[in-house]
Amino acid sequence: MDKNTLEQYKNLFADHVKNLQNQITEKMREIDNSLNLQEDLWQRVDSAGSPGGGGITRAFTGEIFENAGVNTSEVFGAISPEFAKQIGATKNEMWATGISLIIHPRNPRVPTVHANFRMICAGDKFWFGGGADLTPFYPHEEDFSYFHKVWKDACTPYGHYEQWKKTCDEYFVNKHRNNEMRGVGGIFYDHFNSGDIDADFKMFTEISNHFINSYFPIVEKRVDEAFTEEDENFQLHRRGRYVEFNLLHDRGTHFGLKSNGRTDSILISLPARCKFTYCFEPEKGSVHEKMNQYYFPREW
Amino acid sequence: MDKNTLEQYKNLFADHVKNLQNQITEKMREIDNSLNLQEDLWQRVDSAGSPGGGGITRAFTGEIFENAGVNTSEVFGAISPEFAKQIGATKNEMWATGISLIIHPRNPRVPTVHANFRMICAGDKFWFGGGADLTPFYPHEEDFSYFHKVWKDACTPYGHYEQWKKTCDEYFVNKHRNNEMRGVGGIFYDHFNSGDIDADFKMFTEISNHFINSYFPIVEKRVDEAFTEEDENFQLHRRGRYVEFNLLHDRGTHFGLKSNGRTDSILISLPARCKFTYCFEPEKGSVHEKMNQYYFPREW
Repeated sequence: MDKNTLEQYKNLFADHVKNLQNQITEKMREIDNSLNLQEDLWQRVDSAGSPGGGGITRAFTGEIFENAGVNTSEVFGAISPEFAKQIGATKNEMWATGISLIIHPRNPRVPTVHANFRMICAGDKFWFGGGADLTPFYPHEEDFSYFHKVWKDACTPYGHYEQWKKTCDEYFVNKHRNNEMRGVGGIFYDHFNSGDIDADFKMFTEISNHFINSYFPIVEKRVDEAFTEEDENFQLHRRGRYVEFNLLHDRGTHFGLKSNGRTDSILISLPARCKFTYCFEPEKGSVHEKMNQYYFPREW
Repeated sequence: MDKNTLEQYKNLFADHVKNLQNQITEKMREIDNSLNLQEDLWQRVDSAGSPGGGGITRAFTGEIFENAGVNTSEVFGAISPEFAKQIGATKNEMWATGISLIIHPRNPRVPTVHANFRMICAGDKFWFGGGADLTPFYPHEEDFSYFHKVWKDACTPYGHYEQWKKTCDEYFVNKHRNNEMRGVGGIFYDHFNSGDIDADFKMFTEISNHFINSYFPIVEKRVDEAFTEEDENFQLHRRGRYVEFNLLHDRGTHFGLKSNGRTDSILISLPARCKFTYCFEPEKGSVHEKMNQYYFPREW
């Protein structure tokens, strides 16, 4: 592939994630008219001390969306040899763009969601990665089925759904909590390159466009549902498990912090409030005990 | 050193930490008469599947001590070669006993405290480790001076204070937060062995006995102090930083989770409630902005 072709797709994907960031922002504003947005443009210095790109962090707080981050970045430049080895780069330099988002609604009947879609280049190699996963706190099984169906329908035409669903089930796991998942899964893929950049670019832009439809209809359906103090207590404890996963296990978080990323933009993934209780268990026979059974892989 | 001598000191130190656990429990009950104690005796299986000791976890919740864990354990048996290498053992087996405690008071004017005191053996090698550190949320400078003075007075006769104070300042650091410390420090030491087991045993038991006097007088002094909503908000955010340190950086936490430790006993260190806010900053000119200046090394 000639250099100009690669450059062209890099620009197209960088534009795509920024468009998606705008669309998601608009959708959130449409649903939550109390929404406050703090936008921060930041710049990065690479490991050799040269300008290394930057990003657009959008931090939201609101009545419906208690806290959320919808971030894009385009970073490039020198990387350490260890880091190059870790990401499979043949040269000590890289370029990456992507969108990364997390939404923590206040109402425990509305699930938390996370997604990211990224393109990475190292020398003349490129690959795509990303996915979307849902973390509900109330056993509205039809919502989980809906989320999974959107992603199944999105990925099946390309022949990747089964693998990406499995990768997601295996990745978002608290190994230290008897292999309990962070949520109910979704899709996750990494290091994807079919050899045809045009086909890959089209597939990943198209797939990422399903995010809005995978999540916001669930929010709109549940946002006015009354909830109990027990619902909220369960949500806050499950948010605690979310924190455990993100800080103990998430490669993206560790990668970001180790590569001199912007700490506040990375840790925007953490929930506004959470709880930790020794040997926390939901009440016997409660809906929350039922909910606990969903945090393990199953077919949808 | 003959095997019987080592066995004798292992037993003495195991008894010592259990005595200390009882003394601390009594002191906490004396201060907080609402205190609820859940005691769990647990047993461990070593990496070869054989019985590997166990521990006594004491989980507290109360009006004054919102959540706390005062745990002891005595563990032994086969360890993986990687783990042996990591702890500097010459054989793939070890023995360890210790007390590990964390106390998160509800009132933000009362500091959080952490301490642990341990003895580790691998083959005929042994060493001691541990320390105590304070995490306050309100700039009661005289309390910090008091805490440091107790430990200075405890360690100075042995000639180790300066080094152990420095090790503590360097260890409890959130590197990803501009090298801000978790709290205001204290003392920390590891892999200590002077070659004289009798002298080392006496020194470490004696030093660990200062814990009660280093902390509880501060609690008693501040426990009835009125606090504001802003005090609590700052405390909950600083507890968030505490969680970040424990899950991202603490070797003890990683070590425990990787070595098949008991998850709930290890993560008892996390605070009952905490908050995370994008780009959190205390109000300009507030006492909390002043408090932020203490989270860096200084002479006491």
